[in-house]
Amino acid sequence: MGTMTESGSPADVAGEGDAPTTHGYITDKDKYLARLRRIEGQARGIHRMVDEEQYCIDILTQVSALTKALESVALGLLDDHLKHCVVDAARAGGAEADAKVKEASDAIARLVRS
Amino acid sequence: MGTMTESGSPADVAGEGDAPTTHGYITDKDKYLARLRRIEGQARGIHRMVDEEQYCIDILTQVSALTKALESVALGLLDDHLKHCVVDAARAGGAEADAKVKEASDAIARLVRS
Amino acid sequence: MGTMTESGSPADVAGEGDAPTTHGYITDKDKYLARLRRIEGQARGIHRMVDEEQYCIDILTQVSALTKALESVALGLLDDHLKHCVVDAARAGGAEADAKVKEASDAIARLVRS
Amino acid sequence: MGTMTESGSPADVAGEGDAPTTHGYITDKDKYLARLRRIEGQARGIHRMVDEEQYCIDILTQVSALTKALESVALGLLDDHLKHCVVDAARAGGAEADAKVKEASDAIARLVRS
Repeated sequence: MGTMTESGSPADVAGEGDAPTTHGYITDKDKYLARLRRIEGQARGIHRMVDEEQYCIDILTQVSALTKALESVALGLLDDHLKHCVVDAARAGGAEADAKVKEASDAIARLVRS
Repeated sequence: MGTMTESGSPADVAGEGDAPTTHGYITDKDKYLARLRRIEGQARGIHRMVDEEQYCIDILTQVSALTKALESVALGLLDDHLKHCVVDAARAGGAEADAKVKEASDAIARLVRS
Repeated sequence: MGTMTESGSPADVAGEGDAPTTHGYITDKDKYLARLRRIEGQARGIHRMVDEEQYCIDILTQVSALTKALESVALGLLDDHLKHCVVDAARAGGAEADAKVKEASDAIARLVRS
Repeated sequence: MGTMTESGSPADVAGEGDAPTTHGYITDKDKYLARLRRIEGQARGIHRMVDEEQYCIDILTQVSALTKALESVALGLLDDHLKHCVVDAARAGGAEADAKVKEASDAIARLVRS
């Protein structure tokens, strides 16, 4: 998946020793970063539209598009989370599994209600 | 909890042998049934409000309340599903675990987008 | 509430006397009533699915479908409300117009957030 | 984009010449710009969290917060739009009023469904 560190850090050189605790979505990290970069650009575009006093309805259309893009990122992260963290915790079993499911359900509720 | 079968079937008499495949939300079944009964009543109430030509805004308030009640049932079912079906499948492992997570993620996406 | 009849009933012949205060959505009343009847049926179907302990994911699919149907009714009612009540109030002007817009905005916020 | 000035600037003294066609939300423009600036910062923060491989659930919490912030901007813009553009068009009457209501209803549908 290429280099993780945009910022030129030699993180992957170090390698041995203290592996960072990754959180499951790493396989698609570059894709997420690209989508979030686009989302930032969309937010900046909406700021500019308001600043230029463009037509409200056109601005609302862009806000809806941005909301959809965010929703899509959230659903992707959640799917990755279920696939990795929740499944791993379920296998480990015990209280950890229950805690992970509760945490995932709470995150889903926040998404559905937002 | 009480009797499951409203319809007078002797399901619980049979008992032994072929246990029905339950689907995880059974512990709260009576609670779900009561909430869904209320939801049906809310739908009937909205029908009556339109029939009586009550004020749109009041009808919309009831539609929002009904939507919230449904959302809450959905989040409960989903939590039960993760707790039982997904966790069990994760423990069983293999393709079944992947399939269950995919199915759950798709259901979450439908909820978030609806 | 008697017959509503888009369909050539002589309701409007009566005319004189006590016209009910209608609320704008009357032209489509039969359509709304039919949709709400279907929504009631969907709620009843979900109740039955839980009672029969059908698969959670299938139940969730039906809950999402019902939520979408309700949303569609809400958007229709809101459009009718803007077209009639809000436009009329805007023409009448004054505080009434402001109050109607505020009320509509509040209803929209409840829909968006539910 | 020039002076915006909630703050007692003599912008309206100038008056003469080519007033820009404003679109109703101008009275709160600085507030919108500040909120959108914050939203941009939130998007940037989420990008950073993914880049640093922070915990999915924490990222999802931030995505939900950003979605809520956007929703709130959208509801504000829509309220301003109804108050100004739709009310003005309603007063002008005719096809313009119908077109404005249709446009607003479509924007509301996009928000509710996103």
